[in-house]
Amino acid sequence: MVAVPSLFSLRHLLVLSLALNVSLILRALYNESGEGNRWWFCFKKKKMADAESWLAISSTSSLRNSTREKVINLDHGDPTMYERFWRQMGDKTTITIPGWQSMSYLSDVSKICWFLEPEFATEVVRLHRVVGNAVTEGRHIVVGTGSSQLILAALYALSSPHAAEPISVVSAAPYYSSYPSMADYQKSGLYQWAGDAESFDKEGPYIELVTSPNNPDGYRRKSMVNRSQGLLIHDLAYYWPQYTPISSPSDHDLTLFTASKTTGHAGMRIGWALVKDKEVAKKMTKFIELNTIGVSKDSQLRAAKVLKAVSESCEQENHQNQNGESFFKYSYNLMAQRWKQLREVVDAGDMFTLPQFSPAFCTFFGKETEPQPAFMWLKCEGDVEDCETFLRGHKILTRSGRQFGASPKYVRISMLDTDETFIQLLERLSAIQELE
Amino acid sequence: MVAVPSLFSLRHLLVLSLALNVSLILRALYNESGEGNRWWFCFKKKKMADAESWLAISSTSSLRNSTREKVINLDHGDPTMYERFWRQMGDKTTITIPGWQSMSYLSDVSKICWFLEPEFATEVVRLHRVVGNAVTEGRHIVVGTGSSQLILAALYALSSPHAAEPISVVSAAPYYSSYPSMADYQKSGLYQWAGDAESFDKEGPYIELVTSPNNPDGYRRKSMVNRSQGLLIHDLAYYWPQYTPISSPSDHDLTLFTASKTTGHAGMRIGWALVKDKEVAKKMTKFIELNTIGVSKDSQLRAAKVLKAVSESCEQENHQNQNGESFFKYSYNLMAQRWKQLREVVDAGDMFTLPQFSPAFCTFFGKETEPQPAFMWLKCEGDVEDCETFLRGHKILTRSGRQFGASPKYVRISMLDTDETFIQLLERLSAIQELE
Repeated sequence: MVAVPSLFSLRHLLVLSLALNVSLILRALYNESGEGNRWWFCFKKKKMADAESWLAISSTSSLRNSTREKVINLDHGDPTMYERFWRQMGDKTTITIPGWQSMSYLSDVSKICWFLEPEFATEVVRLHRVVGNAVTEGRHIVVGTGSSQLILAALYALSSPHAAEPISVVSAAPYYSSYPSMADYQKSGLYQWAGDAESFDKEGPYIELVTSPNNPDGYRRKSMVNRSQGLLIHDLAYYWPQYTPISSPSDHDLTLFTASKTTGHAGMRIGWALVKDKEVAKKMTKFIELNTIGVSKDSQLRAAKVLKAVSESCEQENHQNQNGESFFKYSYNLMAQRWKQLREVVDAGDMFTLPQFSPAFCTFFGKETEPQPAFMWLKCEGDVEDCETFLRGHKILTRSGRQFGASPKYVRISMLDTDETFIQLLERLSAIQELE
Repeated sequence: MVAVPSLFSLRHLLVLSLALNVSLILRALYNESGEGNRWWFCFKKKKMADAESWLAISSTSSLRNSTREKVINLDHGDPTMYERFWRQMGDKTTITIPGWQSMSYLSDVSKICWFLEPEFATEVVRLHRVVGNAVTEGRHIVVGTGSSQLILAALYALSSPHAAEPISVVSAAPYYSSYPSMADYQKSGLYQWAGDAESFDKEGPYIELVTSPNNPDGYRRKSMVNRSQGLLIHDLAYYWPQYTPISSPSDHDLTLFTASKTTGHAGMRIGWALVKDKEVAKKMTKFIELNTIGVSKDSQLRAAKVLKAVSESCEQENHQNQNGESFFKYSYNLMAQRWKQLREVVDAGDMFTLPQFSPAFCTFFGKETEPQPAFMWLKCEGDVEDCETFLRGHKILTRSGRQFGASPKYVRISMLDTDETFIQLLERLSAIQELE
């Protein structure tokens, strides 16, 4: 049992009310100090006292029907957690674009991906070299409007317009919930969703989406279909040091990354593909040309600046410059703290369980680290068959395991939201365990 | 005959060399004065003298084999012509985005289009009010990564996943050359390109793309399929005062616009749809969610600033503020000048012809204006059957009429490139008429 005091059984509803009040006080404390890393200690020390002082004011509300308790939405993986780091960086990543700049459709017509801004390409290569998570030599870079567009571009590039039937697209369950609809929403005659890679037994060519670390469950992955003729798309959105130990530079035919998960800049809508085969890179570029005639230059320039700042923060740290910690050290520590707190809350009761991970050596940090995924893959134990509905009843919006091709006893919950929302989540999970 | 002096028949090749040299001198003159509007007068006065002085230096080159003559690419409609205006505006449309801003995927979750930045929506409504070219009341705004993405979103939204066969997509020839491949590249089971709207006679529902003013030929257009059951997408990318008289606010079910052609900011990749039906707006939003999970916030914010500056430039002009002319007056004058020069060159020989337009009252300028399209739809007269190949031989890259569902005797040539390229184009067209 962590942080939430034992109360008499008749006062369960009041506990929920307390949780709300504590949250408000903590928010005020948190805002004053401006140091989110300390809130958990405040939480532990102050919770009881604060809760009691609020008791008289709000003694009749309950979690389920309180009009004051807002719904927290952790269905998306909105990476707002990173905002504080970028605020602390001040003007370093501020971008200024004059009205006359970047007006043309074209960026560098000598490149296969003619809408790729050279500055952005340079910083992608540099960041992978600094982090050591991907081989960029002998690769063509294709920029996309987020990695979503690149997944579609890759499906287009790897399929054949002359095939007798659409090529099967598979991924091992639990798979990223958007894969089925992304593959099928256009009713394309080129490719078609064919479900769980582990049970896939159709003859002939196929495309397998390999997500590693996996969304939703955080495990490292390899191709699951045990035969040849497979075309692989490696979605490595989470293969960064804050989420998982970097074991070696990834070295695949077609690898996808996205700024949204690397640095938290989801609103930029910038992703990139590292592509070995020239013809595949050409077809992916053609897809993006037909789809959106290129990718926002403003966002590419901004992404270049942000990635550059990340690389520099790592290089400075390596040179023992004391100007601050690297972006990855900062975000690794924040994730480590959140996962620790989450496990404390979950382990304090019998309602929920979480995946267990083994530590491994991380070449970036030069030490053993533990996986700490961007999502928790939470299982409701016991009688709760539909965990998503259950948590929705407690005003926590999550994504059901069903959407990932898994049991509805599971839900996926974002670990990347603001401190405020994450605190509320922990409080509610705690309170639920108290209540049930 | 304009600007190009009559020369003896034996000196035809030399004329071409002269043209090149004159171009270099003019470029120097042009750069010095910084006032492109004056170059034509300089051109007329100086061409002969300058040309003769260069004769001795470069007397053996010809247009076809000169290694010094670069290819000019006017296949795209890259709107770089507008750059000078935005340079003249100085810092007024400079945008500064701090590293911590716009990190979330979400913009305004209370709106159907949850990734639409409120500032951008406000400026879209304001600009249409100022210009008077579209009704925005009772419309949902859906932002897209350029209008290309919105065309695809509209096809998706207007088709039914339960239909027995793909819905036919038509447009009257000559139609925008990308429509067929945009409709067919995914081999979608939802919609399918069905060619020229004028010859379309299949029973049942269909989607008609109505482009007005039309790309490539610049004529105003209405729906061409003469029956009901048609779902219309109005692509009004060029319905702005610099290109065509504004007769009244457009008032359709689904209308598309794009920053690329409005202000010249193609690199931003920002378009918008005005959508009457709520369910259609929802489906378009869903398409963009699955396609790219929203639209670059950086570019939306930049577009908001640029559109705002355009509206303000119009409002200031109306109030007789002498701080400068409006964006539309500036670009209208530039287009008027280019079209005048082009017609002079074309009318000076028998090789080429251009479409003829009737003037009409423009409510924005409060006077009669002439259409002056963003593309010239040039016809090679006489024996030249393939105008695109013919001009390519003269190092002018254009887009063949064949790609627009029309005769190869036609080509589409961008009128929106830089002054430098436009000068070269006129010189080459002049020289060709001399030579043939």
